[in-house]
This record gives sequence, C-alpha cells and structure tokens, in this order.
Amino acid sequence: MALVPLIDDDDAPAEVRAVYDDIRATRKTDYVNHFWRALANDPRELARVWTHTRDVMGAGALDALTKELVYLAVSITNNCEYCIRSHRAAAVAKGMSAEMFMELAAVVALANANNRLANALQVDVDERYR
Amino acid sequence: MALVPLIDDDDAPAEVRAVYDDIRATRKTDYVNHFWRALANDPRELARVWTHTRDVMGAGALDALTKELVYLAVSITNNCEYCIRSHRAAAVAKGMSAEMFMELAAVVALANANNRLANALQVDVDERYR
Amino acid sequence: MALVPLIDDDDAPAEVRAVYDDIRATRKTDYVNHFWRALANDPRELARVWTHTRDVMGAGALDALTKELVYLAVSITNNCEYCIRSHRAAAVAKGMSAEMFMELAAVVALANANNRLANALQVDVDERYR
Amino acid sequence: MALVPLIDDDDAPAEVRAVYDDIRATRKTDYVNHFWRALANDPRELARVWTHTRDVMGAGALDALTKELVYLAVSITNNCEYCIRSHRAAAVAKGMSAEMFMELAAVVALANANNRLANALQVDVDERYR
Amino acid sequence: MALVPLIDDDDAPAEVRAVYDDIRATRKTDYVNHFWRALANDPRELARVWTHTRDVMGAGALDALTKELVYLAVSITNNCEYCIRSHRAAAVAKGMSAEMFMELAAVVALANANNRLANALQVDVDERYR
Amino acid sequence: MALVPLIDDDDAPAEVRAVYDDIRATRKTDYVNHFWRALANDPRELARVWTHTRDVMGAGALDALTKELVYLAVSITNNCEYCIRSHRAAAVAKGMSAEMFMELAAVVALANANNRLANALQVDVDERYR
Repeated sequence: MALVPLIDDDDAPAEVRAVYDDIRATRKTDYVNHFWRALANDPRELARVWTHTRDVMGAGALDALTKELVYLAVSITNNCEYCIRSHRAAAVAKGMSAEMFMELAAVVALANANNRLANALQVDVDERYR
Repeated sequence: MALVPLIDDDDAPAEVRAVYDDIRATRKTDYVNHFWRALANDPRELARVWTHTRDVMGAGALDALTKELVYLAVSITNNCEYCIRSHRAAAVAKGMSAEMFMELAAVVALANANNRLANALQVDVDERYR
Repeated sequence: MALVPLIDDDDAPAEVRAVYDDIRATRKTDYVNHFWRALANDPRELARVWTHTRDVMGAGALDALTKELVYLAVSITNNCEYCIRSHRAAAVAKGMSAEMFMELAAVVALANANNRLANALQVDVDERYR
Repeated sequence: MALVPLIDDDDAPAEVRAVYDDIRATRKTDYVNHFWRALANDPRELARVWTHTRDVMGAGALDALTKELVYLAVSITNNCEYCIRSHRAAAVAKGMSAEMFMELAAVVALANANNRLANALQVDVDERYR
Repeated sequence: MALVPLIDDDDAPAEVRAVYDDIRATRKTDYVNHFWRALANDPRELARVWTHTRDVMGAGALDALTKELVYLAVSITNNCEYCIRSHRAAAVAKGMSAEMFMELAAVVALANANNRLANALQVDVDERYR
Repeated sequence: MALVPLIDDDDAPAEVRAVYDDIRATRKTDYVNHFWRALANDPRELARVWTHTRDVMGAGALDALTKELVYLAVSITNNCEYCIRSHRAAAVAKGMSAEMFMELAAVVALANANNRLANALQVDVDERYR
C-alpha cells in the first residue's frame, strides 16, 4: 500500500484540482493516475513536478515517442516497477510496438553490460572523444 | 591508466584482428577505439561483445539513432564517463544535434527524479497498467 | 517469502538472544523486526551489523532524526522497499511529520535529477570546489 | 572537459541572464557555478531546473541544512563527483562541520550496506510497516 | 504479471525451440524458466542472450560456482528480485551452502558501504594502485 | 584532491595508531592506504569500518580470494574507481590472474545486462524459486 493516501478529486484543494484538470486536458483522458494522486499530498510539489514533466516530455528537438523510450530506458535501469509499467503504457499510446519494446530492452541491457566492462577495465577516454 | 594493456593491431592474434577488421568495416572508419583494444585481452569476450553490440545496435524496429539515444540515457544514469563520451560521439555521427542532446539530458534527469518519487511514496500500480 | 528462515526467540542461540535483548533495550520496544531475525542466521554478522548500526545511528554531531532522514534518502535512491518502509516508521517515531516526508521525497528526486544533468554534460568541477 | 561550452554572462541571452541574476540574488554571491553555465545551453531547461531547485531547497518543514545533507547523501550514493564537491561546499556554507560530514558519510555507507542485506535475504516487510 | 507473454513449447517457432532444447541439454533439466520464455518474444535476442550467458557462465579461469556468486552479488546490488531468486537456486545447485550465502551477503553489503565511504571522502587513488 | 586530509602516523591519536598497526599486522605490509588515512578523520568510524572489514573479508565458508572477487564485482557495478583499483590489487595479491580478472568482468557485465532484461519484461518469479 502506498505510504500516503491517494487524493480523490472530491478531497482535492483548488490548486490540486487545477493540476488534475491540466493533466486531463494535456493527455486527452479523464484518468489521473496514482502517481499524481500520491504527489498531491504536497500540492506545491505536485504543481512543480507536473509542470516540469509536461514541459520536458512534450515534442521538441526529440519527438514525444523517443522521449518516452528514453524515460523507459532509465526506469528499467533503475528498476522502478511503477515507472516501467506506467510509461510502457504511455509509450504504447504514442506508437511503441511490441517489437520496439523488445529491442529497447535489448539496448538497455547491452548498455548496462558495456558500462561495466568500461568500469572494470578502467578504459581511458580516447583523445578524439575528449 | 587502464587496468589492462590496449592491444595494437601488430600484437593482435588472428581472431582479434578479425574483430578489428569487422569493426572497421561495419563503422566505415579505420579507427578502433580503446574499449575494444582493452577487451581484446580476452579474445573470446571481445568477439562475443562485439557481435552482440553490432547486432543489437543495428537498425530494426528502432532506428540506429534512437538506439544510440537510449544507450546514452543508460550511460548517463550509470555515470560511465567513457560510455557517455564515446556514445555521444556515435550519436552525433548518426545525426544527434546539440539541441537533441540537451533535451535527452532533460528527459534522463526527469526520469531519474520521478523514479525516486514513485519509490518514496511506494505508489501502487494502477489496475490499468498491470 | 524471505530466502532464509526468521529466527524466533525460542530458536535463538545465546549470542543471538543477547543481540535481540540489546535491540529491545536500545529501542525501548519489545518488537524485534524481520531484518534482524533474518540476519540471525549468521550470528556473527547479526552482532556486527547491529553494533555498527546502533553506534552509527545514535545522536552525535548529527541528531538521530537527521540521520534517519539521510538513511531514508539512500533507501529511496536504491529503491529498497523493506528499508523505506521500516525506516520511515523509525523516522516518524523520531518526529518526522507527513510534510517533512513529502519534502524529503522532493529533495531526493531533485538530487537524483541534477546528478544526471552533471553526468550528462560532464561538467568540470569549479576551481573553488576542488 | 565539459561536453558543452560554459555560457559567460557576455554571451548569455536575456532569459539566461535573468536566471544568473536570480542565482546571484538568492545565494547572495556574485559567483555562478559551472553547472548552471553548462545548463544554459538550453535556456528553458536552465530556467526550469533553477526554479525547481530554488523552490525545493529553500527552508520549509525541513531546514535548509538538512536538505543539503539529504542532497549530499544521494550524490554520494550515486557517486556524482561534481555534485558531491559543490553541495559539500553549500552544506559547509550552511553550517555543516567537518564532524557532521564524517557522520553523514558513515550513515550513507551504513544505509547502502543494510539495503543490500535486505535485498539479499529478501526480507518480507513486517505487518506493522505495511 | 509479466509485460510480455511467456512462450510455451507448443507456441515456439523452430529457432526458439532450438534454444529451449540447448538450455535443457546444457542444464541437464527439463525445466525452462520464465526468463527465457519471456525473452522468446524476440527470438534473435533470446538466441544472443542464451549463447552469451552459456559461454560466459561456463567454467574457465573461474569455476562455475564462483561465477554464480559474482552474478548474485551484482543482482543483490541492483535489487533484481527475479535474478536474486533464480541465481540463488542455481548457486545452491552448484554447491553454495546456507553459510556461504550469508557470507556472500555480508561481503556485498560491506563493499556497498565502503564504496560510498570512498565516494564521500573523494579519496585519491594511491600511487601504487594506478 | 580528497575532501579530508590524510592522517599521517605522526599526526594520528593513539586509537588511530592502534588501527594502523592492526592493518599492518593483518595484511603483513607496512603500507596503510589512503582509504584508512582519510577515514581516520573520524577515529570511531575508522575503528568500526576496519574491524568490520577485517572480520568479513577473512576466510570462512568462502575463501579470501572469492570474497575479493565479489567485492570487485560490486565496485565495478557501482563504478567506484578507488575501490576497483585498490581491490584489484588485493585480489591479485591473493592469486587473481589476468585471465580471471577478464572473466570476472564478463560475468559482471552479463549480470548487469540480464538484470535489466528481467526488469524490462517484469518477469514473474517461477514457483520453484519462491
């Protein structure tokens, strides 16, 4: 069970309701997931994190799907189950196929392996990469 | 200084030379970077890791640049300097702009933050994400 | 299910009972939690870890509540559910309010994010911080 | 060397200068450290991260020094050299003594150890901590 | 529930069946565990990872039990429950006693602690270790 | 440069000198490395950590070399340069060959990869491993 209560719409103060409404409008869904309802126990942190997330994850030089794949790669590396499951759903909604997900897993695993080979051997950075 | 010697072409046994040649052919460059020259101290591991890397990183359901971005995201999360610097160069070679790199950093930072908010509050996975 | 049996008082050899008694006396509670009962499968490790923990976590230059907050921050970063839940209880017992917990989560998330921004950009340490 | 140029005041566009000025005013110092000058390559990310950092790290239910200690604990766990060195300076400026720093290191080490003991033994969460 | 279906023998294409058969022959058991049945959703990744794992984990300069202990140490450090539970079973099958497991946990915890003490104090590498 | 001064024998209080002497006697060398000289800034932590390390790393159900390999595996996973370099030297002193080190690196890399595959696919633990 979560360590804090999930804040329902009915119990939400106005500033929390405003964030919930923006989540709904931005994501074009009526569903506000548990992460935000837990964060709502600190309305200022909810507002900060939601705004930050919305602004960073929107399309820019990188498209929105690529950003979801990067987000998933970090969550898999850190083994955050909530994050893996919720952002996998987000990535699927933005076009990630089952085959793309399997390839993503393969790249994440490879990078985690090769990171440790570089650590183990303490490989010096090549002049051209400095 | 690396914990193992870097194996020059002249000192490389035939099986190592074969891998170096495949690296050169695959990457269309004469340069074989330190990572492979350090791994070459164990020729079988060199062959395994190179083949694995070549096969995973090639274009498939995900294009080659997206795979480099995912690889970079993992390396940044794990703080592997060698991996960050060498794969940033690889990503630039495949089309990553300076603006894309800054956005990648922003997404990686955000995911690392939100992973910890989910951990801290021990948020239960929503029914729809199970 | 735990990978080792939890050692009840009745099954505990004398050296384990002595640790259990010290835990009870130090914490002013009759309850010995699962962590110690699992560690008791190696009585010497139990004694080492308990003594180490008791000595480090006691008030010194840092007060006992601050130490619990730091302990929680590490456990959240590493996503150790047992550690988050048990040390949150310990922190609450020492005076952590719900508001303090939410702020702690915010700081931990921020630090995890900014750590990755520094990694990504490979920022050189300023002369004045060396 | 950093992977991006450090943006001097003279080269900074107006929105970056505004952030630099707020850093100076908030911290009551003329010095803007490398982290912000590197982030300034993405003026919107600079503004987001600075605002987020300023708002989270200010005194609230937790005082500003406690927040710095928590930040340091995360940075030590993740081994981010830039973050350890710059936030140690910040913590010293807010009152951290040499003795407090050594105790902080001891708590961070202990928590990292005990996190792994709980992982290894897969200790079930006690009913009372759920 | 796993994010991908587990592939039964009956649903497996020939290339997957070939890997399942090699797993059975190599491990001298009829049981193919969930990890491989999940990976089988990407037959090429399954073949790559199985071959890589079989070749690395076989006895060489390090015996097979030592390799399992090292594998477990990594899995405990990263808190991968699946990996801890399945490789503990593998290690037991190769001769790990209950006492050895407890000592392994103690070493892993110690190393994680001392890693952070070195990080915290930013200890310079001794001339003789360079 | 380290964040704390390294304590020379001449500046060491009696309790620190006692630890230095025990390090020398246990390791049969006159050399006390930087890690301990940095920790000596907190004499009680130095005594705790040294005693803990000496007791855990001594031969038991696992021999001393196996313990060093496990310690190295953790340090490589966490990318602690000081720990990798100093414990590699310790492992070599206890009999680790160049070939064993390369195999160790291969196992550590593999485990880090496979941990992430299990994370990504959220593989359910098999009944028999519970």
